[in-house]
Amino acid sequence: MNNIVSACGAEQGLITVDQALDLIRDKIQVLETENLKLNQALNRYLAEDIYSSINLPLFSQSAVDGYALSAPSTIEPNRSFALVGEIQAGHASELQLTQGQAVRIFTGAKIPLGTTTVARQEIVKIIDSSRIEITESLKAHTDIRDVGEEIAVGDLLASSGQQLSVGAIASLSMAGIQTVNVFQYPKVAVVITGDEVAASVEDFAAGKIFDANAPLIQAWFQQQSQQVEIFHVADTEHAVTALIQTLSKAYDLILTTGGVSVGDYDFIRPVTLNLGFEQIFWKVKQKPGKPIFFATLQRADHSACYLLGLPGNPAAVYMGMQIYTSAVLNALQGQKQPPNWFSAVLTHDVKMDARERFLRMSASFDQSILKVKSLSKQQSHMLSNLMQANCLVRIPAGQTMLEGQIVQGLFIGS
Amino acid sequence: MNNIVSACGAEQGLITVDQALDLIRDKIQVLETENLKLNQALNRYLAEDIYSSINLPLFSQSAVDGYALSAPSTIEPNRSFALVGEIQAGHASELQLTQGQAVRIFTGAKIPLGTTTVARQEIVKIIDSSRIEITESLKAHTDIRDVGEEIAVGDLLASSGQQLSVGAIASLSMAGIQTVNVFQYPKVAVVITGDEVAASVEDFAAGKIFDANAPLIQAWFQQQSQQVEIFHVADTEHAVTALIQTLSKAYDLILTTGGVSVGDYDFIRPVTLNLGFEQIFWKVKQKPGKPIFFATLQRADHSACYLLGLPGNPAAVYMGMQIYTSAVLNALQGQKQPPNWFSAVLTHDVKMDARERFLRMSASFDQSILKVKSLSKQQSHMLSNLMQANCLVRIPAGQTMLEGQIVQGLFIGS
Repeated sequence: MNNIVSACGAEQGLITVDQALDLIRDKIQVLETENLKLNQALNRYLAEDIYSSINLPLFSQSAVDGYALSAPSTIEPNRSFALVGEIQAGHASELQLTQGQAVRIFTGAKIPLGTTTVARQEIVKIIDSSRIEITESLKAHTDIRDVGEEIAVGDLLASSGQQLSVGAIASLSMAGIQTVNVFQYPKVAVVITGDEVAASVEDFAAGKIFDANAPLIQAWFQQQSQQVEIFHVADTEHAVTALIQTLSKAYDLILTTGGVSVGDYDFIRPVTLNLGFEQIFWKVKQKPGKPIFFATLQRADHSACYLLGLPGNPAAVYMGMQIYTSAVLNALQGQKQPPNWFSAVLTHDVKMDARERFLRMSASFDQSILKVKSLSKQQSHMLSNLMQANCLVRIPAGQTMLEGQIVQGLFIGS
Repeated sequence: MNNIVSACGAEQGLITVDQALDLIRDKIQVLETENLKLNQALNRYLAEDIYSSINLPLFSQSAVDGYALSAPSTIEPNRSFALVGEIQAGHASELQLTQGQAVRIFTGAKIPLGTTTVARQEIVKIIDSSRIEITESLKAHTDIRDVGEEIAVGDLLASSGQQLSVGAIASLSMAGIQTVNVFQYPKVAVVITGDEVAASVEDFAAGKIFDANAPLIQAWFQQQSQQVEIFHVADTEHAVTALIQTLSKAYDLILTTGGVSVGDYDFIRPVTLNLGFEQIFWKVKQKPGKPIFFATLQRADHSACYLLGLPGNPAAVYMGMQIYTSAVLNALQGQKQPPNWFSAVLTHDVKMDARERFLRMSASFDQSILKVKSLSKQQSHMLSNLMQANCLVRIPAGQTMLEGQIVQGLFIGS
């Protein structure tokens, strides 16, 4: 871990991580909604409450493979019934049972009118093609799934704001939901700045470095089943201006990497402000990623373009995607809850730093307690510990944290 | 939660969940490997160890925006240097510093030969265009990132078997890795059986139900950025035979839903065995999903086709995807570790059942302790609690579990 207490952490007037996240949630204007087929809506946020228009089960049905019976009360062993037919799952039947009659039935098949109970096939002896016998005592209303016992017409199935997980898609499908009203997913452009970043092998020359940021951001969006367009731009005011101006007309969010500090070649912020963007925040008291920049441009049609400027070092980009880009994408889709931080026990001391830190750690469960352990190589130009890390842990500013203390964090996938 | 102790749980000779998972890992023949561009390899498993062919950093560089200096030892305040040029990040320089010289430099730029330390711009006073003064004491070798300090040529970057997460892709990109040798992702066909399942709105009629299984499986694969082909088949021996025979020639894995029990219309197992598949297991002592079926067909070219037959009820399909399909897909890609079970504390008693159960629960952290709480509507034909569930929890067979006891589970996404 990086034990250096950086002098620039002492800079006055920086906002905190939580203040930055609050600003994202407060200032962002939610996107329009759209109607999608349910099978196109994975991971989207609902823009409507959904009520059931059907009962689930749709009809009273057998819970087992066996026989639907008609009998006035509990059936004693050795009682026999007249077998009058068969009902396969998925096939409608006009049959109506009268007392003493039975019908062969299968799991999920609609029980005929007159059914009082169902005997699973394990307790049925077949006498001949027209007669069966029940071998055990059997109560009324056994192994019947009643119409509407899970969901009744008019029940709330899902609430506005809820994210459509795999399970939610399955559950709504079962209730016959075919389309959903959801918030639009933002159109995102990614701008990679920095002459030191090689865009391809051909670009690679002394003084340039391999680009981790474009692959990182592309993979991050791919992980959420989303595509992004990636643009590389040279470190000149003219090139940056032309690109941002063009993108600001067509995209809801422009993500940039690099060029947001105070170096002589850090054009993102001045260019953006010149183009009419309004700064929401610049610089957060955090490590990595202090010079993060967030701004908005109101367009003539009253829609907005947002620009999230991540610092160029890959550790800041990685943290920025997990913490800030997530928050921006969610807020644009009306989801303004804080991230789902876990709490965990530190397995070792962590030295104080003037800024809040996000450390890449390894988390594991020990008898229900989540324990986190820092990995080496935490500096902002280093990423190799992401091969082992499974979480980002927040270390509060200005505090020495001791082994056994509780910290917050986020899982970041395997 | 379902408190019914099912009679069929007492069935003799069923294997346990862990035995079934062991059989999957033992019996599966790993797929061939392929070379992919790194940016196409998200979530794949490496089939090679990867060693670095470069140093990281690639060259010694400045860690800050400031001035590279040449001085024999610690620099005292007010010492001045001759400014001889500027090096921007990404631009090579032939400059060589001699004692008493300085060069303007930016974060990530290659330090020139002769550099002994770097002064961040905050501690530098510009005297004129050719002279600067250091305002604070400055030690040798400050704010220099040394060549190879993170990774040296020949260091192991990633090991065979490791999954390529977003962080891994970023980290390998930074080390200049362009292509990777990974295990092929299995070609998967999904077969939805059951005349009771409506394939479309037009199919929907009395006695049919809305299909949760196809949307569930499609969304599950979409969540992992994978496509699958989905086929619906009628409940006839002829139709099932024709389809499975065709698919078994072209796919690595056939996933089926329904038709694996002992009902008169349960054709999957007999048809599969008739086609020459060898049964690996059938029936697991679990709830839901007892009649799960797993088989393999050796093809003439020595490759294999596997068939995983999930029971048709949606709760069994959901559990089957999370527990068994995951294990099969991983094993086909050479990943034979058990799932990454969490451990958590039960917040209430859970009644005994003869079979091991997978209950859909809600998990949350309380001061680093993960606590799980069961949701209502756990029966196998019910899915609506997936709107709230965020984990599947294993309840051991034949034990009453008490509040405060530790259980294992898996997170299942938001």
